[in-house]
Amino acid sequence: MSVKKNFYSDNVSGAAPEILEALVAANAGDTAPYGADSITEGLQARFAELFETEVDVYPVGTGTAANGLCASIVAAPYGAIYMSEAAHLHGSECGGPEFWSGGNARPIPVPTVDGKIVVAEMARMVDEAAARSATEVPPRAVSITQGTETSTVYSLSEVRGIAEAARARRLWVHMDGARLANAVARLGCTPAEATWKAGVDVLSFGATKNGALTAEAVVFFNRELAQTMRYRRRRGGHLFSKMRFLSVQLEAFIANDLWLRNARHANAMAQRVREGLAKIPGVRFRSPTEINFVLVSLPQPVWDGLVAEGYSFSRRGAPSEGIIRIACAFDTTEEAVDALVAAAHRHAGTRQGADRPAAVVR
Amino acid sequence: MSVKKNFYSDNVSGAAPEILEALVAANAGDTAPYGADSITEGLQARFAELFETEVDVYPVGTGTAANGLCASIVAAPYGAIYMSEAAHLHGSECGGPEFWSGGNARPIPVPTVDGKIVVAEMARMVDEAAARSATEVPPRAVSITQGTETSTVYSLSEVRGIAEAARARRLWVHMDGARLANAVARLGCTPAEATWKAGVDVLSFGATKNGALTAEAVVFFNRELAQTMRYRRRRGGHLFSKMRFLSVQLEAFIANDLWLRNARHANAMAQRVREGLAKIPGVRFRSPTEINFVLVSLPQPVWDGLVAEGYSFSRRGAPSEGIIRIACAFDTTEEAVDALVAAAHRHAGTRQGADRPAAVVR
Amino acid sequence: MSVKKNFYSDNVSGAAPEILEALVAANAGDTAPYGADSITEGLQARFAELFETEVDVYPVGTGTAANGLCASIVAAPYGAIYMSEAAHLHGSECGGPEFWSGGNARPIPVPTVDGKIVVAEMARMVDEAAARSATEVPPRAVSITQGTETSTVYSLSEVRGIAEAARARRLWVHMDGARLANAVARLGCTPAEATWKAGVDVLSFGATKNGALTAEAVVFFNRELAQTMRYRRRRGGHLFSKMRFLSVQLEAFIANDLWLRNARHANAMAQRVREGLAKIPGVRFRSPTEINFVLVSLPQPVWDGLVAEGYSFSRRGAPSEGIIRIACAFDTTEEAVDALVAAAHRHAGTRQGADRPAAVVR
Amino acid sequence: MSVKKNFYSDNVSGAAPEILEALVAANAGDTAPYGADSITEGLQARFAELFETEVDVYPVGTGTAANGLCASIVAAPYGAIYMSEAAHLHGSECGGPEFWSGGNARPIPVPTVDGKIVVAEMARMVDEAAARSATEVPPRAVSITQGTETSTVYSLSEVRGIAEAARARRLWVHMDGARLANAVARLGCTPAEATWKAGVDVLSFGATKNGALTAEAVVFFNRELAQTMRYRRRRGGHLFSKMRFLSVQLEAFIANDLWLRNARHANAMAQRVREGLAKIPGVRFRSPTEINFVLVSLPQPVWDGLVAEGYSFSRRGAPSEGIIRIACAFDTTEEAVDALVAAAHRHAGTRQGADRPAAVVR
Repeated sequence: MSVKKNFYSDNVSGAAPEILEALVAANAGDTAPYGADSITEGLQARFAELFETEVDVYPVGTGTAANGLCASIVAAPYGAIYMSEAAHLHGSECGGPEFWSGGNARPIPVPTVDGKIVVAEMARMVDEAAARSATEVPPRAVSITQGTETSTVYSLSEVRGIAEAARARRLWVHMDGARLANAVARLGCTPAEATWKAGVDVLSFGATKNGALTAEAVVFFNRELAQTMRYRRRRGGHLFSKMRFLSVQLEAFIANDLWLRNARHANAMAQRVREGLAKIPGVRFRSPTEINFVLVSLPQPVWDGLVAEGYSFSRRGAPSEGIIRIACAFDTTEEAVDALVAAAHRHAGTRQGADRPAAVVR
Repeated sequence: MSVKKNFYSDNVSGAAPEILEALVAANAGDTAPYGADSITEGLQARFAELFETEVDVYPVGTGTAANGLCASIVAAPYGAIYMSEAAHLHGSECGGPEFWSGGNARPIPVPTVDGKIVVAEMARMVDEAAARSATEVPPRAVSITQGTETSTVYSLSEVRGIAEAARARRLWVHMDGARLANAVARLGCTPAEATWKAGVDVLSFGATKNGALTAEAVVFFNRELAQTMRYRRRRGGHLFSKMRFLSVQLEAFIANDLWLRNARHANAMAQRVREGLAKIPGVRFRSPTEINFVLVSLPQPVWDGLVAEGYSFSRRGAPSEGIIRIACAFDTTEEAVDALVAAAHRHAGTRQGADRPAAVVR
Repeated sequence: MSVKKNFYSDNVSGAAPEILEALVAANAGDTAPYGADSITEGLQARFAELFETEVDVYPVGTGTAANGLCASIVAAPYGAIYMSEAAHLHGSECGGPEFWSGGNARPIPVPTVDGKIVVAEMARMVDEAAARSATEVPPRAVSITQGTETSTVYSLSEVRGIAEAARARRLWVHMDGARLANAVARLGCTPAEATWKAGVDVLSFGATKNGALTAEAVVFFNRELAQTMRYRRRRGGHLFSKMRFLSVQLEAFIANDLWLRNARHANAMAQRVREGLAKIPGVRFRSPTEINFVLVSLPQPVWDGLVAEGYSFSRRGAPSEGIIRIACAFDTTEEAVDALVAAAHRHAGTRQGADRPAAVVR
Repeated sequence: MSVKKNFYSDNVSGAAPEILEALVAANAGDTAPYGADSITEGLQARFAELFETEVDVYPVGTGTAANGLCASIVAAPYGAIYMSEAAHLHGSECGGPEFWSGGNARPIPVPTVDGKIVVAEMARMVDEAAARSATEVPPRAVSITQGTETSTVYSLSEVRGIAEAARARRLWVHMDGARLANAVARLGCTPAEATWKAGVDVLSFGATKNGALTAEAVVFFNRELAQTMRYRRRRGGHLFSKMRFLSVQLEAFIANDLWLRNARHANAMAQRVREGLAKIPGVRFRSPTEINFVLVSLPQPVWDGLVAEGYSFSRRGAPSEGIIRIACAFDTTEEAVDALVAAAHRHAGTRQGADRPAAVVR
């Protein structure tokens, strides 16, 4: 394989070798279908250990399914979920909350700073909506993305602050943890501290962006919320008949800290990208880089040159803003990052190692 | 691996070696996410070749998703879908049609004989409902399971008859082909003859029961029906970011007739089971065995004995009926079948090879 | 006005004079919109008095809305409602339960005798469904129509029996009381005995069929179930801005026992129809006549003659069964009934008053 | 009746005498239920005449129902509807579009000036969403409120501009005409010019705010869109069994230009309020007054004084903005307006008739 030029998403990578091997090994022998197999049943214990508390774990195929199922449950029987406008649940799932709830959930965007919900704004909006009882959808939950869509991470006290404001208003707290591994790696805390100890009721636990093939999980800390989950997952087409092929990915993902090792590496690579680009004049970072990707505006010649060389990135925001996301994954190598940075410098006409810092624009 | 004793479902098997190998091979290298990769894009051409016509193919993770998506589309904007009471779509998907359509689809059971819809009954019901315009959900589609839930197969002229009755009433025709491979193998026809040439608009194309890990596809012969599919699949959580891992399973499944070879074998094994059990007094077959499983009532000592030995089967119908399903798969060996039959004879106290035929009861 | 020949439904009548007068009187003066007016607020007390317990009352425009709102609430967050196949909620509301719940409720028909749910059958079905946890919609509620769609009335002990079976299985009990007035008049019990004392959680309280213009109410005995009602009614378009025009109908309806007086009269008229027709040879009654309509098959010449004279009735069941419903209302006069009966005798060629009894066929 | 002090909404008024009389007259005689009566059937011709084209007219009970039904139809089978953030459909119907569509419609707010959609912004948003095909809900329709929630009126060329932009993007055009009468009265155009001639496909035709008791209508100019309407209205509980009581209100409403006479009067009264308050220092009008209400911020002593006297108004926007709506109706008298204005001057300590103009703030 040549050096990676595809920084479009952490999803462009294949599976981590440990996970693929576990999958192949799981193929031998007959087994019980629909998750009655021993691997799937064992996940309960593995996740309980990981999170240091009893949990209910439901593997599903995609993050959209995990989020949608959570949305349908925390909004039930009918209500609004407050979240960042950038939340995957809001803008990237084609109306997922409405779909999974049968029109009984409405996502409501809340102002953010650096991709993080401003708790006072959220509280004000919830209070106003709750007061207009016959016209507004009743507030029911808040959804936090950890790490965020802008490469930042909520501190533990920020999560607690949102959860407390939510609790005071009788709202459930959902965490979209598509990149929870990257956030935990960044925070240096335990998975328990990052989630239920900070007030999270239910978690979309991501694996696909960080080394799995096609596996995510919904983890209920508040186990009463899990009551209808088995039905909902089934009708939503995420009770896989050969469920062990999903479960074994999750098992390998959390075994021996693979998930955190992968995340630490991806985070470090994004940091390396940022540092490498920082000295190019005209490069503007659009948010802090706390997890595994960099949001940045590049000078036109740099962009043009990289694209001409075959590099790919995703755009963020309105086209006029010119923001791109440079995403690193568990398998992004130092060589690949260094080649990218060198190419950027080359197209910028700068000598790498020079010391003019880039502006940070938010 | 010891001899298979798990005849619970065709889903208890792992993946066919050809498919697992293809999956592993697909892991190398970066690629475009969300199905923009070359494997997924190539599926269009592969399926067009297979079905001898232009089609739109959408891989999804489960048969429930395939069926649900089809139901939401053929019932849109709002209407009823006529199907067998035994249809997976009706009774095994936890209210799937209602879910996928947001309450805009209602499944309506139609009388069947040998698991096959009685076309005259369906026509009468549709006509009556259409006449009561302000109170009944308007008829919109029919869904045929091919092969059926009772191990039978619609003849091509039976499919055409239903499709013509549907067309005359402006209903779409969906085929649930979770076991289409087994039906095509049985009929000895082409995939085209089995589907669009017989009047099918859209197909749930099954692979998981016949050798894939977790891959099914929706195949649109009527491509106008596909218009909203990309959105619906996305919001339903079946647009996998690493879609190539599903697509490559489907690619390997249809390459070199693997799907038909697997199906022929499974069908033959079911036939071997039936023949082997036929001479045990008290064994009552509950439907013809035309595909890969046998519906049968066993004498109590036979049942008890097999279960005690570790055999497993699934029950069908009400518990009082005592019907079990003995399911064979692509990897069920002759040895495993013969061991099962021998054990049954042993528990029945009969000598295998004796010539008293079992009763056929419908 | 000439003598009534329209026995199609109890809905063909206009409003009772007492109700129309109250409506006109309510027109004077400004008032608070959206049910904050004094008439609407007063309804709480009036209904509490009527039912001898605290209740939450929500006026709505139609019985379909009342039933649909109740269905969405008792099935929430997601589940099945068991009911008679003839239930309005099942077959006459165009998929109402699915609609009002956003696909989260499935109506499941239960065997009946004389239009009344067979409790043992219901219990068996619920138990079986509850046992198949990953494939069946979970049982959540039962809905009883009182009086039934076949002119019968559940005895108080029958209602209690169903409610107890439901309670034992953690199901809510809904009563569709579109003709509750007729049932209470027949039973001679109090409204409390007919409902919450027998185990009913929530009631669709009918008025339109019995003298109102366009007013029904949802009455919650289990007031916790009312929690989301104000939102659901609003979004469903049944929070009328000039709500007092609905409330005043309900107020007048229950004042001075008008509802029961109207119902007693309608019941008596149906009895008079039945007695009048009973002696015509070939007349077959299809169910007991316990409330305000008669289900009957008429000899062809009688049917033809009545239709030719301008009489109208509604058909019930499949056309081949030849069953008609002769519906009486609060304003059906003895003269109108006698004219109908006389005409039937005339077309039958019988002399009224002869003594051959008609067959009762169920 | 004393002088009106309730300016909370145009909904606080009762019914216009002409409409109430028509309702009472409609009570006599039996009739066909469910809209098969002659009054309802006659509405088709009356509305065709009014709009100078063939239309399909469906009476419903509330504006929320009219809007919701329209939303479910124009978004079908699945899609987004662009509208003002202030649109009733967006913020005042408790998630109506999601409800009526079963989660298949998403309302998307568009920037406005003076309550009117900025067509260029809408076009840009639609184009961007359409380009992101796998993640965004597909654009399907635009909804215009005419007259707007801020008392303004789209000019005919403004409506045409939006409709043309919509047509170019294959979007349907819905008009929420809860106050269409007031807009037509203001524009001095024909109803045809205001609607289908400007590109409107389907209209929520309001009557309740302008003299009816509880009647609105959905009017389809694009009659193909009406295909599923009868089913949808039925399941939504707006097919009233005694439909004639709604239809007769609509009939009387449009007879002899009653609707326009009422609207002209209400508009004139709002103008009179505005002119009367204009000279009070500190009074700030928050939008032009083109129809029947005034959005205004009052000096605190004026507000306090009026409330103390028993006047009532509704608040608009966030509480901190201090905006109130003074709503006039068909039955608001000059005396009532003059009394209100005089009281405001009294509390402001100004002499009425003085000539300092108020500031206009937008």
